[in-house]
Amino acid sequence: MAFHLLERNRTGAIDLSNVLHNAMEHIHHCKRCRTFTEDELCEICRHPEREASGLLCIVESPQDVLAIEQTLSYKGQYFVLMGHLSPIDGVGPEEIGLTELEGRLSAGGINEVILATNPTVEGEATAHYIAQLCASHNVDASRIAHGVPVGGELEYIDGNTLTHAFSGRRKL
Amino acid sequence: MAFHLLERNRTGAIDLSNVLHNAMEHIHHCKRCRTFTEDELCEICRHPEREASGLLCIVESPQDVLAIEQTLSYKGQYFVLMGHLSPIDGVGPEEIGLTELEGRLSAGGINEVILATNPTVEGEATAHYIAQLCASHNVDASRIAHGVPVGGELEYIDGNTLTHAFSGRRKL
Ligand SMILES: [Zn+2]
Ligand SMILES: [Zn+2]
Repeated sequence: MAFHLLERNRTGAIDLSNVLHNAMEHIHHCKRCRTFTEDELCEICRHPEREASGLLCIVESPQDVLAIEQTLSYKGQYFVLMGHLSPIDGVGPEEIGLTELEGRLSAGGINEVILATNPTVEGEATAHYIAQLCASHNVDASRIAHGVPVGGELEYIDGNTLTHAFSGRRKL
Repeated sequence: MAFHLLERNRTGAIDLSNVLHNAMEHIHHCKRCRTFTEDELCEICRHPEREASGLLCIVESPQDVLAIEQTLSYKGQYFVLMGHLSPIDGVGPEEIGLTELEGRLSAGGINEVILATNPTVEGEATAHYIAQLCASHNVDASRIAHGVPVGGELEYIDGNTLTHAFSGRRKL
């Protein structure tokens, strides 16, 4: 990219460097949910109806917030871990913001914590850990459903997912 | 394939044609579940513990039976539709064996029908139709879970699946 810019677009490159510089200087973590924002509180945390919902969705990254927001079906707040528990890499509860999360749980106003960490081994372990925190603060916790993705075909779905789809079946 | 066989392996081709011919002559549909078998009843339908389970899983194809069997986690019986409802192609309830299915529902011995048709529009419509049949025979029906596949990452999952994963979330 650098060579292309040097050869063909030096003014564009200077603009890009300014934008990048500004972003690096002005974007930090939301004080409430830890996602990226230019303000003290992000737009979602400032939304009164979102707070009134009593729902708090826990995700691993700001990209997950974007993915969920694009569905237009969730109207609660978020808490962004910026990672997952990984003791082997020195990432413990403190590093993923669980002290702040406990503060929010004790402050009240949250009726349900929705655990939307990734459906990976690390994501499951992190969800399990946070579910126990919720229990100790008497806040309900739920886990997003594992199962077959919409539009797929059963025969191409991996066995582990199929097993979850069966065990998580719902009465009609 | 034909040119390759003509050029390099004529005796192999004759063997293949015999195997194919035998298969076409001897493999037909299981009288009970409609999957492919060389016998009157397939191996699964002949299994007494599977019958005793009281579970009947409805799938679209014999390949789906194989995929579910590979998980080793389901121990009930199957009913294979060999397709799905598709009125535009002239595929109605009769064509996917629902008369036989109603016979099994009225005969008793089935405590739960698990609808494992594909998570597509046609599969959902077919599952919905069969759920109504079950209700009219006072047999419980359930649908396999839709949600995020195990091992994936949230940000790469389509919005429709994410929406289902949220609405199907389970209390921990
Ligand atoms: Zn925020
Ligand atoms: Zn059979």
